[in-house]
Amino acid sequence: MRLKTMGLAIAMLLAPAAQADEGMWMPSQLPDITEQLRKAGFRGKPAELADLTKAPLNAVVKVGGATGAFVSDQGLVLTNHHVAFGVIQYNSNAQRDLIRDGYVAADRSEELPANPDFRLLVTTGFDKVTDKVLADAHGKTGRAYYDAVDAAGKALVAECERAGGVRCSVVTMFYGRDFYLVKQLELRDVRLVYAPPRAIGNYGDEVDNFVWPRHAGDFTVLRAYVGPDGKPADYAKENRPYVPPAHLQVARDGVNEGDYVMLAGYPGITYRHRSAAEFADQVEWRLPTAVATMKALQDVIEDAGKADAQAKIRYASQLQSLKNGIKRFSGELEGLQRSDAVSVRRKDEAAMLAWLGKQPDARTLRPRIDAAMAEIAAGNVGRERDLLLGLLQSQTQLLRSALRLQRLAHERGKPDAERESGYQQRDEELIAGQLRQVQRRYDPAVEKRLLTTLLTRYQQLPAAQHLPEFDAAFGRTPAELMGTLDRVYAATKLGEEAQRLQGLKAAPTELAVSDDALLKLAAKLQPALLRLDDERKAREGELLRLRPAYMQALIAYREQQGRAVYPDANSTLRVSYGKVTPLKARDAVSYAPLTSTAGIVEKNTGTEPFDAPKPLLDAIAKGDYAGYLDPKSGTMPVDFLSNLDTTGGNSGSPVLNAKGELVGLNFDSNWEAVSASWMFDPRYKRAIHVDLRYMRWLMDKVYPAHWLLAELGTPAR
Amino acid sequence: MRLKTMGLAIAMLLAPAAQADEGMWMPSQLPDITEQLRKAGFRGKPAELADLTKAPLNAVVKVGGATGAFVSDQGLVLTNHHVAFGVIQYNSNAQRDLIRDGYVAADRSEELPANPDFRLLVTTGFDKVTDKVLADAHGKTGRAYYDAVDAAGKALVAECERAGGVRCSVVTMFYGRDFYLVKQLELRDVRLVYAPPRAIGNYGDEVDNFVWPRHAGDFTVLRAYVGPDGKPADYAKENRPYVPPAHLQVARDGVNEGDYVMLAGYPGITYRHRSAAEFADQVEWRLPTAVATMKALQDVIEDAGKADAQAKIRYASQLQSLKNGIKRFSGELEGLQRSDAVSVRRKDEAAMLAWLGKQPDARTLRPRIDAAMAEIAAGNVGRERDLLLGLLQSQTQLLRSALRLQRLAHERGKPDAERESGYQQRDEELIAGQLRQVQRRYDPAVEKRLLTTLLTRYQQLPAAQHLPEFDAAFGRTPAELMGTLDRVYAATKLGEEAQRLQGLKAAPTELAVSDDALLKLAAKLQPALLRLDDERKAREGELLRLRPAYMQALIAYREQQGRAVYPDANSTLRVSYGKVTPLKARDAVSYAPLTSTAGIVEKNTGTEPFDAPKPLLDAIAKGDYAGYLDPKSGTMPVDFLSNLDTTGGNSGSPVLNAKGELVGLNFDSNWEAVSASWMFDPRYKRAIHVDLRYMRWLMDKVYPAHWLLAELGTPAR
Repeated sequence: MRLKTMGLAIAMLLAPAAQADEGMWMPSQLPDITEQLRKAGFRGKPAELADLTKAPLNAVVKVGGATGAFVSDQGLVLTNHHVAFGVIQYNSNAQRDLIRDGYVAADRSEELPANPDFRLLVTTGFDKVTDKVLADAHGKTGRAYYDAVDAAGKALVAECERAGGVRCSVVTMFYGRDFYLVKQLELRDVRLVYAPPRAIGNYGDEVDNFVWPRHAGDFTVLRAYVGPDGKPADYAKENRPYVPPAHLQVARDGVNEGDYVMLAGYPGITYRHRSAAEFADQVEWRLPTAVATMKALQDVIEDAGKADAQAKIRYASQLQSLKNGIKRFSGELEGLQRSDAVSVRRKDEAAMLAWLGKQPDARTLRPRIDAAMAEIAAGNVGRERDLLLGLLQSQTQLLRSALRLQRLAHERGKPDAERESGYQQRDEELIAGQLRQVQRRYDPAVEKRLLTTLLTRYQQLPAAQHLPEFDAAFGRTPAELMGTLDRVYAATKLGEEAQRLQGLKAAPTELAVSDDALLKLAAKLQPALLRLDDERKAREGELLRLRPAYMQALIAYREQQGRAVYPDANSTLRVSYGKVTPLKARDAVSYAPLTSTAGIVEKNTGTEPFDAPKPLLDAIAKGDYAGYLDPKSGTMPVDFLSNLDTTGGNSGSPVLNAKGELVGLNFDSNWEAVSASWMFDPRYKRAIHVDLRYMRWLMDKVYPAHWLLAELGTPAR
Repeated sequence: MRLKTMGLAIAMLLAPAAQADEGMWMPSQLPDITEQLRKAGFRGKPAELADLTKAPLNAVVKVGGATGAFVSDQGLVLTNHHVAFGVIQYNSNAQRDLIRDGYVAADRSEELPANPDFRLLVTTGFDKVTDKVLADAHGKTGRAYYDAVDAAGKALVAECERAGGVRCSVVTMFYGRDFYLVKQLELRDVRLVYAPPRAIGNYGDEVDNFVWPRHAGDFTVLRAYVGPDGKPADYAKENRPYVPPAHLQVARDGVNEGDYVMLAGYPGITYRHRSAAEFADQVEWRLPTAVATMKALQDVIEDAGKADAQAKIRYASQLQSLKNGIKRFSGELEGLQRSDAVSVRRKDEAAMLAWLGKQPDARTLRPRIDAAMAEIAAGNVGRERDLLLGLLQSQTQLLRSALRLQRLAHERGKPDAERESGYQQRDEELIAGQLRQVQRRYDPAVEKRLLTTLLTRYQQLPAAQHLPEFDAAFGRTPAELMGTLDRVYAATKLGEEAQRLQGLKAAPTELAVSDDALLKLAAKLQPALLRLDDERKAREGELLRLRPAYMQALIAYREQQGRAVYPDANSTLRVSYGKVTPLKARDAVSYAPLTSTAGIVEKNTGTEPFDAPKPLLDAIAKGDYAGYLDPKSGTMPVDFLSNLDTTGGNSGSPVLNAKGELVGLNFDSNWEAVSASWMFDPRYKRAIHVDLRYMRWLMDKVYPAHWLLAELGTPAR
């Protein structure tokens, strides 16, 4: 009955009435959708959520690439175990394995400093700067448009950061239509307060990744500190807890099926408003091709690992990330096919263009929309090559280091403000950190085989996609390629950390004439990569200029459908609302929206990743749940499921009830929702949250930290 | 919450109120549980179901090791696709692949004869013969008791079969307490009328085996024929349809969640009333050991199949059956552990014995119960060896044939009535059939490797379990074993069908001195096997004598709990009742009790086993379901789930609604219920049925056979 169901799905996605809680709203949009929010069950005032620099939304912070929230007036921050995993790992060693055992600070003095590059960002400014950003761009096209936007943005950022203690950035909403300057306080002294053992925080690990029903206690408690002067500071003993401008209140009760919930966080990127052609490219070419290529790399690493135990260890993390990516892309593909996304988007776009044809502004908008479409199509011409070069730069360690050093040297030849993003003075510390990490993640034989896999595919591409510099450097045949790689990797000294860091210190002119084989190779390739970068920027400039016409048409079209449009996600603070919702995943298969501790025991095998700690199993057997049980089911909740609109970056996002109290922490999506970065299908899109009743029970009865419960305002029972 | 849940489970299993539809009732017991049946929703008169030789229960027939039912007054029989699979296979060849394409007879003249050894058995007599069976046994013990029972049984069978055209057997209920003489009409001309393609009848195959939600149309329609004189006859063109004494009426409506259903069939064997020690043996030793050994055999066959395509085909069926067995045993183990069966049974037995201690007949019963326990424990001493010898006889083709020929020769030296069951004159035709089948299922290299696997394990057993005859025949070392097998299999002529059938004709004395290497080997092993048989029978005799004391105590104990006791299954006709029931399989996971055609499309991958035929997919896309939709869900049903008490042998059992109309055909259990042969856990025990609405829709719209629908009394819509 696929066809029939699909018809229904299309109707649900397109009909104004069935907007179905889709949306990652800018806080400033919330007053516009007051009626929707009320209908959904929200009991607060949307206007009070409109400013993300004011309470309560300024309690929501950025943690690494994810989200967290202040939960006490003494700087306590709640985020996911997997978001704070680096902090836990940094504090672990053979004598004290906090990953295995978890950590409970007995009091504030026992809180452990995070790794020095760990940061908490508190948004303190969010100002519309569209006019400033576009002032110089008007009348320009392509690369010039891009450069004007880029330069204006960099100038705004530099000015904003001049005072110090803040990170600034310029972001665009609606793909070039609006620009905002984001100002964030950067807290550098963050400490570990409470973490459950891995077998709680990451119960089920990869086996349960993207899986509902889930049984992980994926939370960790941190605390932000500032200097005695109240300003951001590096770790120091005399620092004192940061007093946040606002904090969220942990709820005393939980939620159950049908209850209103909302979530605030920093979703990374979505493509919901991309054109139908981009949907088709993603489903018909990009996802299947990326999966096939990444699987080839996975095979190389697994094969090498069979013969070489050290290589296996060194590439464990890269392999894991490849497998994750393959699983994610495959799931996205499967989901987009299941939702018939290409056809749904095509019909929607065709309807929009037909409607636009009858509007007065069609005459100005339509040509720009057509030009944007042509630009998008032109960008696909080299897509096979670009995918391979992207993997070449992300999946190698030494070649990537050499390319980065050469690029940095190149950029250092310019004034700092004109340097490429990621290669400015403010980025150099990060680059140094990356160059240091190479040591533990590199094996020459494996890197050569990975390169062989990628470049053999490159060699087979049609001539139009070839780059003379690459052909000259690697040859046109597999034999030439093999000869080059053998020669270069035998000769280079970049495998030594000191040599790489030396490259960081060297003057640009020195690097350009370096006699290191790999640095020389990178120098040869650089002009081609710079040229591709130029072409890409020219295209991006055109799209920044033209895509707003598409967005303008879409927004107007939706408006007459009675629907508001949220901008695609871009790592800025967004709010989504919805309800605790079960999932009908397949014919005759239903998943309830709450899991319980009984499920921990059911899944438990005693071996990783289902090796719940004995104290937890004992506490479950004892069943001392008074004050924490879900009243409706009479069971002790662990995780819950909602239809909230989330994507990567929403990890750690606080989940609030209708009164704005904290009831959960977002930490994953279900498998069926992986495609939601392109299309929100209300039948399948769900988000997975830790139930804070579980956290509080653990803190009360299993790994007690009653002083923390008191600070959270939810004392032990 | 395992402990808590378990506590609940124990309560549910033991409390009188919560008998929870458990029970495979002898029809004669149904009047005793009238109140239960009424409460469950049955609308007929239990007394009308009390006689299995009268309508309607005499419409239920035995088909192979499974069940079927007459569904028209012209001998139409409904059973599972997998039960009739041999018939479909027998009629298939390269030109006409009925497995792939299914079969729809256009009219009666196109009905295809089944394989000649295919039988339908209609029960025509079921008489209590306890006094006759035990008359000579009184006062005896052990082997003498066994022989007395055996001889009395054989005499009854011989007398019963004297008239011809019937198969008779003596069965015991309650492990030696009661004996019945079963008389069955044996219909030998059975024809194939309607079979769906494999991709419908066995949609999902092994992947979906024991799986709910399920989407298989596991049914086939046969017709029984008799000679022109109305008596059972071999196939002949002039035969005419058998007019059964009764037939079931296919319902015009279906069932949905909560509806009463009941089922009649021939469940093979259950162990629900075995002792706690036997439960422990099963869970702690037998299941894990059998799984490990069968996996070793599976490895051998799969490995051989990689190198040899012909061997792969020849062992496909044996491999399938091994994999099925492994999966089944693993599931049984998992389920018994999940239900904490050993501990539940131990507590129940202890409570029963404690209660018995306070009863007046404890003085006579308790010593006999203790003696039974001791006998059971003694039987475990050689269990490792016995398991290996069992597999040696079931998993080889040629050695099994040789052993069977020698055993037959041995038995032929006795009067027919004294021969071992399975080796009497009446069994010789069956043995001949088996000897013929060897041809297509045998490869000498594979058989040698299977034997090596089993006998190497035998060689490693402690001395106490060794048999001098086996040690002499196969040697005590792997090298000797290999030498023997190579020599014997190189020399034997039993690989030729003619030679095997020749062995069947040969006089016993001829075989004993045969110079065929394998027949000689079998002759050497035979004394050991006969000795083990003797020991087993002596034990069985003791248990036949003593176990009724255990059953008597149990029945009395249950009676004061307010519960009736059904005898463990023994391939006799039983009735179970219950309702259409969803399954809460795991924390937060619920399965609805009806699947729909939408699920066929969801599962479909286009490749086996999820390769639904195009006509089916087209019909689903068309959605022409008028008259067949489930009114509650508005979907087209495929299979449904109930809590009916079933076990192996119940395949093909008719599932009836409260009015006694046929609504489904049982064909599988869920994975969680595999352990139900030992323990009925109401939380997990479910049975899986084809919904006859699906069968009727297929016959109406997809692979039409309107003449059949008319004969079934449910004409095309």
